[in-house]
Amino acid sequence: MIRHTVVFTLKDQKTPLEAPDFFAAALKLAAIPGVQNFECLRQVGKKNKFDFGLSMEFASAALYETYNNHPDHVQFVQQYWLNEVDDFLEIDYEPLI
Amino acid sequence: MIRHTVVFTLKDQKTPLEAPDFFAAALKLAAIPGVQNFECLRQVGKKNKFDFGLSMEFASAALYETYNNHPDHVQFVQQYWLNEVDDFLEIDYEPLI
Repeated sequence: MIRHTVVFTLKDQKTPLEAPDFFAAALKLAAIPGVQNFECLRQVGKKNKFDFGLSMEFASAALYETYNNHPDHVQFVQQYWLNEVDDFLEIDYEPLI
Repeated sequence: MIRHTVVFTLKDQKTPLEAPDFFAAALKLAAIPGVQNFECLRQVGKKNKFDFGLSMEFASAALYETYNNHPDHVQFVQQYWLNEVDDFLEIDYEPLI
């Protein structure tokens, strides 16, 4: 299992109601083949600057790669991510123990 | 639900076999009341500098606070975290949608 996460801030938007199109588009990523346990998250910790998160899981590196190259993901990045995200950090996990 | 995560590097230790006491102690955090879905993780992404992660969930902010103040957590921080962790970032999530 690979858990792909990204924590991020949006340009001038602090609530999901201020960016409804962005989150509606993000939710559609869940339908890409291989995506499991897709989550839209609010970052609530006080020890970093980020406001939101996305998390999803893949059964294999090959399915993760399929997602990365899927036209719906590529379109989301081009149409929404590059235009609306201010800063972000990608963190990917596998089980350790 | 609150998901508390921390991504980190260890001083001069790049594999769990090099820090067996640290991870054995970390696993005991799972027994603190209120801790759900505790995970020891390897950070495998290429876009940040961190090597490991811990993730756990709490049903409420009160249970998260209980964990933070629990003597077993305080002892873990004093005995292992402060001595062995090189750098870290805490990220806490709640469901957004």
